[in-house]
Formats: sequence, structure tokens, C-alpha cells
Amino acid sequence: MLDWLEISVKALNKETKAAALDRQQILTKPAGSLGKMESLAVSLATMQGSERPSVDKTFITVFAADHGIAAEGVSAYPQAVTAQMIANFLAGGAAISVCARELGASLEIVNLGAVEPLPHEFIALAESSQSQFHQVNISNGTLSFLTQQAMTEEQLVQAMNAGKEAAERAFEQGAQLFIGGEMGIGNTTTATALACALLNRPALDIAGPGTGITPEGIKFKAQMIEQAIAFHKAAFYKTEVVNPLAILTCLGGFEIVALCGAYLRSAQLGLPVLVDGFICSVAALFAQSLNQECREWMVFSHQSAEPGHRIILEAMNGEPILKLEMRLGEGSGAAIAVSLLKTACALHNQMATFAEAGVDDKG
Amino acid sequence: MLDWLEISVKALNKETKAAALDRQQILTKPAGSLGKMESLAVSLATMQGSERPSVDKTFITVFAADHGIAAEGVSAYPQAVTAQMIANFLAGGAAISVCARELGASLEIVNLGAVEPLPHEFIALAESSQSQFHQVNISNGTLSFLTQQAMTEEQLVQAMNAGKEAAERAFEQGAQLFIGGEMGIGNTTTATALACALLNRPALDIAGPGTGITPEGIKFKAQMIEQAIAFHKAAFYKTEVVNPLAILTCLGGFEIVALCGAYLRSAQLGLPVLVDGFICSVAALFAQSLNQECREWMVFSHQSAEPGHRIILEAMNGEPILKLEMRLGEGSGAAIAVSLLKTACALHNQMATFAEAGVDDKG
Repeated sequence: MLDWLEISVKALNKETKAAALDRQQILTKPAGSLGKMESLAVSLATMQGSERPSVDKTFITVFAADHGIAAEGVSAYPQAVTAQMIANFLAGGAAISVCARELGASLEIVNLGAVEPLPHEFIALAESSQSQFHQVNISNGTLSFLTQQAMTEEQLVQAMNAGKEAAERAFEQGAQLFIGGEMGIGNTTTATALACALLNRPALDIAGPGTGITPEGIKFKAQMIEQAIAFHKAAFYKTEVVNPLAILTCLGGFEIVALCGAYLRSAQLGLPVLVDGFICSVAALFAQSLNQECREWMVFSHQSAEPGHRIILEAMNGEPILKLEMRLGEGSGAAIAVSLLKTACALHNQMATFAEAGVDDKG
Repeated sequence: MLDWLEISVKALNKETKAAALDRQQILTKPAGSLGKMESLAVSLATMQGSERPSVDKTFITVFAADHGIAAEGVSAYPQAVTAQMIANFLAGGAAISVCARELGASLEIVNLGAVEPLPHEFIALAESSQSQFHQVNISNGTLSFLTQQAMTEEQLVQAMNAGKEAAERAFEQGAQLFIGGEMGIGNTTTATALACALLNRPALDIAGPGTGITPEGIKFKAQMIEQAIAFHKAAFYKTEVVNPLAILTCLGGFEIVALCGAYLRSAQLGLPVLVDGFICSVAALFAQSLNQECREWMVFSHQSAEPGHRIILEAMNGEPILKLEMRLGEGSGAAIAVSLLKTACALHNQMATFAEAGVDDKG
């Protein structure tokens, strides 16, 4: 059941926002001279309801799943990589594993449906890993959305609830910041199809190279997406307004639905969300389309090299902190941006005021 | 004596560059998908001559000095703030103090000539501070460059050598990265005048609000600069080519000359430099004008809100890592960017290869 989607998003704290804005005016620097570092500290103070914001307790969940559309040849990598990377996440060798370790952040991996079974040695690996592993048995990947629904309504509920539960685990463990990541061969194609369907944009506007396909590959990918949207369009508009849940059911994937659920639940719980790249931003766009107010709990970490990302960010009025031409996923761009949030909090909390330091303010 | 300016810059290490580039191809991610994080790791490996680069030992020197031009009313703050901020740096309350503490970086402050004497309590403060303090007795500030040389040739040598010695202290202490910072009321005006003189640009192209003056203030500032350049122009061109040392002598200031010396010496010693904002970039531009090859040892940390910074970066073909609308100085933008360099190194050094992780590479 998805009744919980109706729960209101937590209200932002106007008092701590005002206090944080005031404090930024009296710290020993020209007012405004720390630029976005100031506004990030104020945003966190507003969301956390604290005059002294902190992201020391950052919680990262990577959702993994396979995509039926990968069988059409839209990715540069074989589907087996999804399961192999789950093992790499837990073994500590993936980019997100390194970032989480550097940050001292909690990292958990949720397998919602990789095509390949996890290897036999996997149980021992998961037990010895510093990261948590959760198996959610939905299905071994979605179906290809070209001529059928990617998932059933029941599977949509399972995936959405898996995201909800991840946000709740983070919240219960005292998280101050939630990061969602994703892994799934073919999921740039799925995310592109989702964005085109929701924003009513031609596929070529948004389709990009993903993990590294050729310009011809991009054209082919866009063609698949146009074909799929034409096939499913009636289902998207069962009523007069577009139905985001119907789009997610038709196109997938499990990990994108889970991200959407995690973002929505985080906003309900009052847990700030740091959004990663293209695929996570599409999940965030769907969360916003289901509940406009959850947008207030989202900070956008970076603008990826995937060209469509700019369009999604614009649609959400999202201003990314970083532009580093990254396009890896896993939550890696968001994890990299956490160090800037940490510094923003340290500056806000630890700098001396003009009065404390005996420094003259502007004449 | 400035004979040392003639010493060659250290050669970059082509072997470790090639090894780092190769390694980035076999880590468990699509090649290139970490964007600038990859190129930063490769740059550091190239400069440090190490296949496993590191910025754990970062050394920050803030050079402080006053500017005679401040008497003309070009800044929003009184000159007394320069000395007051030196005390704040040492007391740990300034932005750069907080950043250095967060990074575990060494921070030292060099006073080259604040107008106000440091307060009596200052000796005890300097002794108890976690930061090092160096007093270099040049003069209590430069002279106003409107109708006279800002400093004598001897003072230029003293300031340049103070920068050289800071780079040497960093190197001797095993620094893996050098950051220079600056503090001096009025120094945005000096830096703007320097850049206009060296690049032969009109003052209004580069003049900006600095710590926060009004549009009328900017016009006034630009007018001062035009007047000063007209007055000094003959001295800049004693020979047919422009003489960067003559420009620095005529316009100042001590801390900008020291930064220039520190950057040049770092490149000679083979110590990578992370350049801060507008004023530091102007110092870097002068270092480059004195020795083109030192440019290879510079990484640009951020593009500041000061509009002229873009012009300086373009003149040096410098690509900033961050754009956070910062305009504080002190080396703060560079210090904030170090956390990204740290993550770039951690990813490069710690990620598993495809072979190690048993993950299939691109088909």
C-alpha cells in the first residue's frame, strides 16, 4: 500500500533560518563573501531546525536493480555488471565505498533485483563488510518497457516501500543527511524515458551517452524511448493529468522508484536529502511531481556530464553545488559534495563574530 | 637579491603521469566518469612524482600587509582591520583558521606590514596559537601608488624573499601542497591595478566590488587606477617589453609580491600550488610573467565573485575547480577545494581495478 505518500512533508524551521541568517551577518568576513557556503549552512540550519547545522552523520543508500531495456543494447556494459558491482560496493572497492570511508558515512546497499544471482561467496562478503546489505526480493530485473509494463503495480509498491524503509533506517540511526545512489546497467535509458514522459519532451532533448555509448548509440536509444512512450502514452494519461506512478510502473526501474520513495519519506521525516546526478535527479523529479513540497528538503550536489541533467535541474529550479563533469552514479557526486557541506557547517559554527574577535565591521 | 628568480622550475614527472592515466582506465568505473576528479588526481601524480598522490600535508601561508591606496577610500573597511584580522587568524576565529583546522593543514601568518601595531596581548596569543606567526619588518604598509612608487626596490626584494622563504619552510616540512592566502584592506584595488597594467586592460574591465563597495565606488576605484597607471606607465616600460617587477614596485603590495615569490619558489622546489581567488590569481599571473613554466605547478581552486577573476583565469588558461561566489580571500577558497583534492586522491589510490574486483569491463 502507498497510503503513506499522502503524509505531509515536515515544515521548515523559520526560527533557525532567521538565526542562521543573522549569524552569517556578524561573522568576521564581509557579509556574503562566503557565497554559496553561507546559503548551504543556512539551508541546513533551516532543515535541521538547528542553529548549528551538521552533516557529520551522513547516511548513503545505494539501490541496485537491472533493467529489461538493457537487452535492446542501450548500454556499453553487460548486465552482469550490476551484481558484480554490488559485490564491489560491499568489498569496499567502488567509488562510493571509498567516498563513504573518507567521510565516515554509513553506506548500505539494497539489491532490488539484479539479473544475475549474487555469487556464493557473497554471504561471507556481506557479513564481513563495513557496509550493510539488504536483499529485497522483487524480481530479477524489470521487463523491457518497449512493448510491456516494466513492472506490476505490486512491484511498484514493493520498490517504493523499499525506499521508504531506507529513509526510515537512516532517520532512526540519527542521520543528519540522506544520500541515495543507484546502480543498474541501462538505467540512464530508463531515467531518460521517465523524464521525457513526465516533462513531455522529445527523447533527443534528453538522451545522452550514459556510461559511454557512441552518437549512433544515442540516436538508437532515443528511438527506443520514443517508441516506448508512444506505446505507453495512453496509460500515462488514464485521467486528464499525467500520472507519475503510472509512468514509473510502465518504464521502471526498481531502484529509481525506491529513490523516489526514499526522497519522499525523508522529506516527511525532516531529513535533508543531497541529490546525486542525472538518474537520482529524475527520481527527485518524480518525488516532486507526487508531492511538490518535498522539493524544499532537497539540495542538488552536482551537475553531471550527462547533458539531460541540466534540463532536469532547470525543471526543479535546482542549483548544483559542483560541476565536475562526473557521470558515474552510485551517489558518488553527492558524496563528494558532502565535504563542502561539512566545511560550510564548520565555518558557520566555528568562526568568530566581529564582537568576539575585536574586529571592526564595515564603517 | 633576486638572483634566485632565474632558477629553473622543476620538470614534471612523465612516468608517474602515464602510470596515473593508465590506472584511471582500469578502476571500476566507466573511463572518464569521475570527470575532473580524475584529471586532478593525474595532475597531482604528475607534479608529486608519485603514482599515489596525496594532499594530506597541506601548508597554508597567509601574507598580510596594508596598502597606501586605502587612504583614498577604495575599501569598505578601515585599515585597522588588517592587524585585527592577523590576531583573529592566530586566535582561530577567521574563515581560514576554521578551514585549516578542518583539513588538519598547517597554517602560518606572515605580517609584512600592517599599518597598526599588533596589540600588546599579541605576543601571548602568537605563542599559544596552533598557527605559526612570522614578523617581516618591511614597513607599516605601502605608500599610496597614486603619485609615487608603492615600495622601494629594496622592499620589493624583501617581500619577494619573504614569499620564497615561506615556500621553503613548507617544502622542508614535507608539504604536498602549498596554499597562499592574503589579507590587506585595499588589496583588491592594488590587484586590479596590477592586472590592468600587466594585461594592458582598461580599469573598468577588471574593477569590481571587492569586500563590498557600491557601483559608484567601483567607478571611483577604476578612475584612481587609470590615473595611477598613467602616472607610472613610463616606469613599466623602461625597456621595450613590460617589466613585471617594475609594475609590482610601483603599485604594490607587499603580500602580493610575497605570494608571487612563494609561487615561483614552489615551482622551483616541485611543490604543487593551489591558487586561491582574485588577488592570489593576480600574484600567480605575475609569477607566470616572470617564469612561464611555473604555470605547470598551479591548480586553480575556484572562480570568485569578483568579476575580474574570470579575466585573470582566462589569461592563464586556468580552469577553476569550484564556482561558489566566494570573495573572502585569506586562501579560504583554496582551502575549501582541498577536500575535493583529498577525495580525488582517495579515489585514485583506493578504488579497486576491474581485475581486482572481478567486474566485467566494457564489451
